[in-house]
Parts: sequence; structure tokens; C-alpha cells
Amino acid sequence: MNLNQLALARCEQLVERATQLRIAVLRDETGARIIDCGVHVPGGLEAGVGLAEVCMAGLGRVELTPGNLELWPGPSVAVRTDQPVAACMASQYAGWQIAGEKFFAMGSGPMRAIRGRETLFEKIGFKEAANAVIGILETAKLPHEDVCHHVAEECGIAAEHLTLMVAPTASLAGSIQVVARSIETALHKLHEVGFDIQRVRSGFGVAPLPPIAADDLVGIGRTNDAVLYGGEVTLWVTGDDDSLREFGPQIPSSASPDHGQPFAAIFDRYERDFYKIDPMLFSPARVVLNNLDTGTAFRFGETDPQVIHESFTS
Amino acid sequence: MNLNQLALARCEQLVERATQLRIAVLRDETGARIIDCGVHVPGGLEAGVGLAEVCMAGLGRVELTPGNLELWPGPSVAVRTDQPVAACMASQYAGWQIAGEKFFAMGSGPMRAIRGRETLFEKIGFKEAANAVIGILETAKLPHEDVCHHVAEECGIAAEHLTLMVAPTASLAGSIQVVARSIETALHKLHEVGFDIQRVRSGFGVAPLPPIAADDLVGIGRTNDAVLYGGEVTLWVTGDDDSLREFGPQIPSSASPDHGQPFAAIFDRYERDFYKIDPMLFSPARVVLNNLDTGTAFRFGETDPQVIHESFTS
Amino acid sequence: MNLNQLALARCEQLVERATQLRIAVLRDETGARIIDCGVHVPGGLEAGVGLAEVCMAGLGRVELTPGNLELWPGPSVAVRTDQPVAACMASQYAGWQIAGEKFFAMGSGPMRAIRGRETLFEKIGFKEAANAVIGILETAKLPHEDVCHHVAEECGIAAEHLTLMVAPTASLAGSIQVVARSIETALHKLHEVGFDIQRVRSGFGVAPLPPIAADDLVGIGRTNDAVLYGGEVTLWVTGDDDSLREFGPQIPSSASPDHGQPFAAIFDRYERDFYKIDPMLFSPARVVLNNLDTGTAFRFGETDPQVIHESFTS
Repeated sequence: MNLNQLALARCEQLVERATQLRIAVLRDETGARIIDCGVHVPGGLEAGVGLAEVCMAGLGRVELTPGNLELWPGPSVAVRTDQPVAACMASQYAGWQIAGEKFFAMGSGPMRAIRGRETLFEKIGFKEAANAVIGILETAKLPHEDVCHHVAEECGIAAEHLTLMVAPTASLAGSIQVVARSIETALHKLHEVGFDIQRVRSGFGVAPLPPIAADDLVGIGRTNDAVLYGGEVTLWVTGDDDSLREFGPQIPSSASPDHGQPFAAIFDRYERDFYKIDPMLFSPARVVLNNLDTGTAFRFGETDPQVIHESFTS
Repeated sequence: MNLNQLALARCEQLVERATQLRIAVLRDETGARIIDCGVHVPGGLEAGVGLAEVCMAGLGRVELTPGNLELWPGPSVAVRTDQPVAACMASQYAGWQIAGEKFFAMGSGPMRAIRGRETLFEKIGFKEAANAVIGILETAKLPHEDVCHHVAEECGIAAEHLTLMVAPTASLAGSIQVVARSIETALHKLHEVGFDIQRVRSGFGVAPLPPIAADDLVGIGRTNDAVLYGGEVTLWVTGDDDSLREFGPQIPSSASPDHGQPFAAIFDRYERDFYKIDPMLFSPARVVLNNLDTGTAFRFGETDPQVIHESFTS
Repeated sequence: MNLNQLALARCEQLVERATQLRIAVLRDETGARIIDCGVHVPGGLEAGVGLAEVCMAGLGRVELTPGNLELWPGPSVAVRTDQPVAACMASQYAGWQIAGEKFFAMGSGPMRAIRGRETLFEKIGFKEAANAVIGILETAKLPHEDVCHHVAEECGIAAEHLTLMVAPTASLAGSIQVVARSIETALHKLHEVGFDIQRVRSGFGVAPLPPIAADDLVGIGRTNDAVLYGGEVTLWVTGDDDSLREFGPQIPSSASPDHGQPFAAIFDRYERDFYKIDPMLFSPARVVLNNLDTGTAFRFGETDPQVIHESFTS
């Protein structure tokens, strides 16, 4: 199970249908392949589903389903995986911040597992080698050559073996890719509070697709709120119940004192300093933990239609 | 992106599984291929999903999902596309009325783009050439040879290169194919009120599958009502907000003075003269317009469980 | 349309992705192929969907969808088929009780149609021959060699041509496979009350996936309750309405005097003698019968969120 190989196989399916999906496949001077899913091209719903599945290294399924009408009209983004640690932590989590000259992107996808420099990889004991590498950039600009060069170097490969899929948060594909992170945020939060995420066997999540924003800041706010106030996740775990009773209440976003307002308002309150926001805020609104070893199901948190409405209409 | 080629590729997947799908593949004397999806054969749910996707030239996804229980128990028909003008206007819209001796059918599918005689094609600037042509007929009878001959002639091809898929409204496949038109009706209405539909980038729609009727007149009533009173559509558009504020309120079916009764009752009221019914009635119950350029989302109209119930149970 | 051939084709798709699906493909001394989907391996959601589709001989679609929140948070199992008698009765119904030394399994899948010894097969007039045979065992242990030998013998084939997929009720794959039986239970009940099930053309069903239990007895209780109190099925049938009015009210689980308590409580009340439970209890909570010949839709029964909650949390 090579994450980069699996993700590239899924990616090729998108490349074959590039015209229909309204994505563009480019080669830059470094030889890196750049797949524009929403910067200079429209992209769309199908590109978003594909982008989200590549981001999970082909180890998860992403589907657009009629949404929960109490939250918001329009589609929701449903996601599931039987390889939660590999798909969500080793691949989907946006743990690589890629900065260049006048360039910034949240980097995710299997390229992170090749680089392997995040402390997360030590903790989950995951590392892989690959000849061809693929990553996802959440950003409003296509990467310059120096960015491709830098990413390739960090991965220890020639740039010509690098594929980067790019979509702004404020695009259809980009928003879908972010809202497909409902399981990932639950898993990351569990990890942060000290729960052994190897105990998580499978996950199913759903969150409403917010109106696509015109700029990335608003887009980041809405896609975050989609998960924080509209995300519903079920995780199937192993082990004892006591630890679920202990860690469970810390998992939903409502466990954070910052919970209760749209992300944009919280961000403003902290004078737009992202790092002042309580990191414990970033998790789904509701989490169900079903212990496969005891049969018990625990439910923590609740969705908040009021904040969803406020966020999606402002 | 050749619509006929894409639709034929999707069609072949159905032909390969004809027995399972309970459809029949026939050749008439003209050499035309006729695929019966519900006239002399049962057809079914899977045939309906396939028929609906062929009707959109393979440029949309159609899915059966658990329905909105407030409207009606049973499945709903969800549809999405990133090529709304090509899939819905150049292909899915039933703009070709095909009349022969004791024969009448609503003609849709990519064959319309080959014929290209509807004024709609001038307006959307779409026209294509193809060696092999495929169309969908909504009718209770298989087409006679003269009908096939006529259609082939209008398309400028030999009949042996023509494929016609046929299903009555009052059949499982036929009803699914019609109820999959939620996005199409929204788009057509936008076009009719003077909105530039090239601004529509993507669409997602859902409408309840009504009980299949025993005769086509009841079937037409119920499938229309499924969209008019139960259809919920999200369109992602570009451009300015003012035009959305202007055109938006005209989009849902509730904008028509004829709104509020089941289609069958309206039809009776106009002494069964279809052309007396306000053409502005034919659109989904609720439409959300999300402007990709401004980030705003507008919501117009609402579903009507009462009329749905009245329509589906009478 | 050979059920075993179709089911094996679907099974091979799972075998190819065994690592991702966390299933194990084994050969025992008899040469039989055993696919462990949850006994000594985790299995998961995707294995469950695949197992359920194999169990329907590839003639039905099984999907995990966001659930009905009034019943239970988390995914529901949706199922549909256009070949209800073949898929559900000749294949999916667990009509073969396989007992060996310290071994018991509910046997289902297309192997039943090869054996053909259940009286059900006479009534539905279905029998097939196949060189390679596949069956599903709902049990907590992998089958011993004598069990494989016995099954092969009953099917009249060499053990090396036998494939057995195995999952405990108390596993992700096993629970999904059972909850995918919403249409099957409706069909079986119709058959039991004397309705000609050849009149059933197509079916669509959905039921909530309960929390996976730690032991099979609790698992059997919850998966039964998922269908009995949470299952919603639509059947499209032919023929007269009078028989639907007559048989319809007997179809939902509420027609049984044992209805109203979780399965576990009923089981205890009858001193854990399964055969004292009213067999008429086993059917979905709600059934809609849509008569394709008359256009009428009948609705019988209702879901019971209260009992679902009681069952899933105890």
C-alpha cells in the first residue's frame, strides 16, 4: 500500500477527463506536473471529489449527497475510510506549510509521507519511499518554479517526478476538498489530546458544502464552520471504554472555549492572528465513538444550525 | 468533448448489462438501434439512472438517494453536473417534439445537438458533428420505421448510425429520467427569463421519485410535481449579484401564478391544453444561487409537501 | 445471468484490494478459498459494502449514506435491486443453516441456488448450475475443513471450486451485510404471507447502521432492530390493488404482536428460544408498495426512533 502510488492512480483518472472536469494539466520549467483545479480554470464538483480522494491517497471515498436541510440547502460532502491513520493523518492532514516568494500554500497529500519531517510521522510511525510523488496545495496561485523545486528537494526526488494539484479555498474543488476533512479533524483532535489514534479502525463523516466564497479568507471561514458547526463524524475504535469517556468530551468543537461564533468572528476577535485561536476548536460538531471491543456507542457534541446560517450568509 | 460520443460510451455500458437491467436492444428494418427501457420490457431503477446519464451525454452524475421524508418516503433522484449548458441544454432538454403517424414522443439527448434546428442552439452557440448519433424518446410506444427514418434524416445520418433509447413516463426508467431534470428546468427557466446561462458553472439538484403511474398523463403530472414542488437545486454562477437579485425571484415555480396545485389539476383547469399553462411554472421548488465571484448565496422558493402528497396519492 | 458467476466477479474486485479492505484471502487444506472479512482481521465499511453486494450476487447496489438523524447519527445502509427475487431470495436470504462440530453459521449467497434444497427454491422456480460456487457465512469463526467439505458436497462441487466469505455479525462488514437486508426481509415476509413475489419488479431500501456490537448476540439484536424499527423499503409491484390492500398491512414489523420492544428483550421474554418469536416480526418498519399497473402507492407501518434508541444504546 504505497500512498503516492495509490494517489497517482486516482489522479490519472482525473487527468484523462481533464476537459470535462475543467481542470488544466501543465508542466513547468522544472518538469513538475501542475494540475490546476481552480486557479485559472473553473474546476467543479467532480474535480473536488477527485481532489479530495487523491488527498486521502485513494484510501477514502468522497461523495456529494443531498444535505441536512436543518443546516443548509444543497449538497453535503460525505467521506469514509477504513484506513483512517494512513488516509487522514499520513496524507490528508494539511501539515506542510509551503512558503515561497509571494507564495503561501497549505500542503497536504502523500508527498508529506515522503518528506516525513513533521513530528506527526514519528508518532504514527509512518514513512514511505516513492519514485513519483504527489501533493495537494490549497492556495490561490499556481506554484512558481522555485516552489516546485523546493518541494521536490524536500521529497528527495527530481521535480519531473512531482505532481502538484492546486485549488484555492475559494473554489468549488478547493472547498469540497477542505469540507471532506471531517474525519481528519476528529482524528487530529484525538491525536492532540493524547488518544492513540491507531485505535481508530474506520470513519464516516459528513458536512455541508458552504457557498463558495469570493476570497480565500471568507472561504477558510466558511469551510471551517462547515466542519466545526455542521460536521458529523462516526469513528469505530478499539480498546477500553474509560478512555473514550475521558477523551470523548474533548473531541467536538464545542469543547473549546472559542466555540459558538463563526470562524471569521473568532479570527477578528484575535486580531487576525491565527495562532491565538484555540487549536482545540478544530474538530467536528458531533462525534460518535463506537467501541468495537465493547459495543458501546458514545455521542459527543451537536451541530449548530444557527452559526452555520450566520457563517454561510455573511 | 463530443456529446454523442460520450453518450454512446455510457449507453454501451447499459447494453452490456441488458439482461440484468431488463432492457431490450433491437434493430429495426431501417438499421436503427432501439433500446427499449420500459415499453415492452420492465426496465428498472438502474436502467433509469443510466438513461438519465445518457440523456445528459455522460456529463452528469445521477444517483438514487434516500429521500427527504418530509416530502415523500422512498428514493430521491440526485443529479449534478459541471457542464450544465452542454449536459442540460444541448442534450437533456426535451426540445424536439417528434410526431409520426399515431406516434408522439418528447425527444431529448445529444441527437438534438446534431440536428441543431431549435433556436436554443443558436442562443447557446452549440453545434456538433458526429458519425453516430443517440437520442432519448419519452413515449409509450417504440418508434416505427418512419420515425427512425425521419430522425436520422433530420440528423443527416444513415439510420444504421442512430440509437434511440425509449421509455414511457409511466415506467421506472422513464420517471427517473424525467425527475433527473431538476437542474435542467432551473437552467431553462433562467434562459427563458433572459439570464445568460453561460454564467452557470455547476449544478446540484434533487427531487423525490414519485410513485410510477399507470398511464403517461398521470405520470407526466407526478414527475412534473416532483420537480415543481419537491425539486431543490443549487447553481454555482459567475458575474454580478444585482442580476441574481433581479432574475432569482423569477426562477422557482412559485413565481408562476399557476403554482399551488398539482399539475394534473392545473392541466384540467386549462381544459387539457398544455400550451395554456404558464411556461414559467416549469422549474424547481427551491433554487439556491451561489455567486462564485462575490461569494453570496441567494435562496428562492420552497418545497411544498402538501402538493407533493396530493399529487402522489391521487 | 449466472448468480455464482456474477457474485464471483464482484468478489474478485474485493480480493484485488484485500490489503486496503483489511480482509484476508486464505486456502484451507480442502482447497476451498476462505475470505475472512472480520474474524481474525478488521475488515471495515468497504468490505461490508462489497460483502453485501456479493451476497446479492452482484444484482443489487449497496451504499453507505448519511443517515436519518431522527433515528440514529451516522451512516445508513441503502440497497436497491431490479432483480429482487434472484438477488434477495435466491441469493441474499440466509436460508442455509450450516452446523458442524462446534460451528454454526447462517449461510447465504448464490451457493444456496446451487444446493437448491430449500423449499423456497421450488416455490420461486429457481435453480442454477455452476462450476465455481460462492457463499457467505455469518459466524464468529472461520469454517473448519469439515465444514468446507460439507458445503462443497452439498453443492456437488470439489472444495477447490468453493469460495466462502466470512464475517461475524459483531463486525463492521458483518453488520453492514445484515442491515443491507431491508428489501430481502420485506420480500421474504410477502412470500410467507402468500403473496406472489414474482410480482415485485424492483426495490429500494434503507436502514440505519447500528453501533457494532462486541458479541454476536447483541449484534443480532441491533441489526435486526435496525431493519424492524428503522428499515424503510419501497417495492414496485405489478398486478391488482386488492391484493396489496389485503397483504400490505401484514408486511411491516408492526403487524406482529411481538413488535414494540428491542429484539434482545423479545428474545429474553421467550427464554432465548429463537423459534418462539413470531416469524412475522422480521420485516422492515415501513413499506411502500407502488403498483406499476395501477399507479397506486400504499404505505404501511412506521419507523420507531424510540426502540432504535433503546436497542442501539443498551
